[in-house]
Amino acid sequence: MTYCVAMRVDEGLVFLSDTRTNAGVDHVSAARKMAVFEQPGDRVLVLLAAGNLALTQAVMQLLSEPAPEDKPTLYNVATMAEAARLVGDAVREVHRRDAATLAEFSVDFNCSFILGGQIRGANTRLFMIYSAGNFVESSQVSPYFQIGESKYGKPIIDRVVTPSTPLDEVAKCALVSMDSTLRSNLSVGLPLDLLVYEKDALQVTRFSTIDNDNHYFQMIHRTWGERLRQIFGEIPNPTWADPANVPLRARETVSNVPRVTGSELRAEPDTSAPPFQTLMQPESGQSQH
Amino acid sequence: MTYCVAMRVDEGLVFLSDTRTNAGVDHVSAARKMAVFEQPGDRVLVLLAAGNLALTQAVMQLLSEPAPEDKPTLYNVATMAEAARLVGDAVREVHRRDAATLAEFSVDFNCSFILGGQIRGANTRLFMIYSAGNFVESSQVSPYFQIGESKYGKPIIDRVVTPSTPLDEVAKCALVSMDSTLRSNLSVGLPLDLLVYEKDALQVTRFSTIDNDNHYFQMIHRTWGERLRQIFGEIPNPTWADPANVPLRARETVSNVPRVTGSELRAEPDTSAPPFQTLMQPESGQSQH
Repeated sequence: MTYCVAMRVDEGLVFLSDTRTNAGVDHVSAARKMAVFEQPGDRVLVLLAAGNLALTQAVMQLLSEPAPEDKPTLYNVATMAEAARLVGDAVREVHRRDAATLAEFSVDFNCSFILGGQIRGANTRLFMIYSAGNFVESSQVSPYFQIGESKYGKPIIDRVVTPSTPLDEVAKCALVSMDSTLRSNLSVGLPLDLLVYEKDALQVTRFSTIDNDNHYFQMIHRTWGERLRQIFGEIPNPTWADPANVPLRARETVSNVPRVTGSELRAEPDTSAPPFQTLMQPESGQSQH
Repeated sequence: MTYCVAMRVDEGLVFLSDTRTNAGVDHVSAARKMAVFEQPGDRVLVLLAAGNLALTQAVMQLLSEPAPEDKPTLYNVATMAEAARLVGDAVREVHRRDAATLAEFSVDFNCSFILGGQIRGANTRLFMIYSAGNFVESSQVSPYFQIGESKYGKPIIDRVVTPSTPLDEVAKCALVSMDSTLRSNLSVGLPLDLLVYEKDALQVTRFSTIDNDNHYFQMIHRTWGERLRQIFGEIPNPTWADPANVPLRARETVSNVPRVTGSELRAEPDTSAPPFQTLMQPESGQSQH
C-alpha cells in the first residue's frame, strides 16, 4: 500500500508521499513514489504514484524517456491539463501492453496518480489521474487529493484545510494526516518525501526526506497523540437518565432497545422488558444517575 | 455501508451502530443493525451486523426463530463461545441457501457480525464473526472490533481505549469515532443505537437511540471539531533550513529531490539543480528561514 496526499491552496502546493512497498507482509521494501519534473524559471511538476509498483514505474519510465522533437513531454507541454493528459496517455499505453497478461495472473491493473505543479504564466493546478487514464482536477471546495490508503488520514484534512490556509500549516496537516495513517496501516512507512511548492517560485524551494530521526516529525507524532488524548479527556462523559423517572418526550419514543424478544425461544414468555437508562438530554432537566 | 463498533473493557461492554442502508446513493434507507437477546438476570447478548442487508437479516431471522426443545439457541447456550458458534452456523446456513444464486447476479456473499455479552457465572466476552462463519475473540491487547466502514474512526480508538478505560469514557470514544466516520462517509448515518453494558448487570441498563436532536452527540460533534482545530493550530509549523548554508550531515544526504532530470527530454541539458530548503532539524542549530 501507499499513502500520498497533495493539497492546493492559495499560497501554493504541498505534496507528501511515503516510501513503503510490499508484496505481502513478508516482502517489504522501499521505493520513492514522488517524481519531480523541474525546469527552473519555467515549470515545476510533481507526480505522486500509488498502486502496483511495476505499473507505476512503467508509467514513470514512459514519461521520462527521450521523445522526438515534435512529441509533447512534461517538459514542453503548454498547460497543466495537457500534462495530465500526457500522464493519462502513458497509463493507457501501459494498460495496452500489460493488462491482458496481468489478468492471466489475476493481477488487477491498479495504479493512480496525482499530478500538480505550475507552468510559467499560469496558476498552480492539481489533478488526480485514474487507472483508466481519465482525470479530475481539484477545486476550491475540494482542494486536495489522496491516493492509496486514504481513509485514516482524511478526517484531519477535512477539518483544517481551506484554500486560505498558510502553506506551512498545510504541510503540517499533511504530516499529521500521514502520522495517523502510519499508526493504523503497517503497509505505509517512513521515510517520507515532503515537497512544499511556493506559488510562482517555478523551482523547488522546500523539500525534505523525513525519516525516524527527523525531530519535527517526531514532535508531531508525540504531541498530536498527547493532545488528542488531552482534549478527549476534557470532553464530558455521557450521563444517563432513567426514562421511568421522567415524562417521555416525543423524541424518546424511538429510544427502544432492539430486543429479539425470544418469547418463542423459551418455555416462559418474557413479558417484562426491564427498565433502562437513556443518554441524558442536558436541556430536559432530567435527573442524572 | 455501515459502521458498527464494540469494545470490551474491565467495566463492561459498549456497542454502537448506525442505521443507514443503501443500494446506491439514490436508494438510501434506514435499518437497525443491533439486536439484543436479553434474559434479565441470566444473560445479555448483543449482535451487530454489517454487509448485505438481506443476508444479515436472514441470519437474524434464523437466530430469532422458534427452535425445538433440544436445539441450542442464543437464549439457552451455556457459553458466549457457543453463542458465537451458533451465529457462525446461521451464517453458513444462509450461505448454503443463497450464495450460489447471489453469485449468478454477481452479488458478493458479504456479511459480518460482532457478538458480545455476558452469561451468568462467566465474564463478558466479545467476538467477531466473518462471512465464512468462523470467528475471533477480542483480547486485552486488542479490546475492540469494528465492522463496515472502520477506517475513519479507528485512530481515536487506538489512541485512547485500554482495558482500564472507564465505561462511559469508552462510550464517549465510540461516539467520537462515529462522528469522524459520519463526517467522511455519506453511507453511514444517524440515528445511532448505543448500548452500554455494565459488567454483571445481566440486563440492559443503559441504552439510547441518538438522532440529530441529541444534545450530547451535538456537543461531541461541535466540540471535537473545534478542539481538534485548536490543538492543530497550537503545534508549530515546520521551519526550513537552507542546506547551502549549513554543513551537510550524514542523514541529510538522503534528502535529495527525486528529480526526473529531463536532460534527454530537452535540447539543453539541465546541469544546475537549484538549491532548496530542507525541513529544519531543531537540534542542529541551523539558521531558520
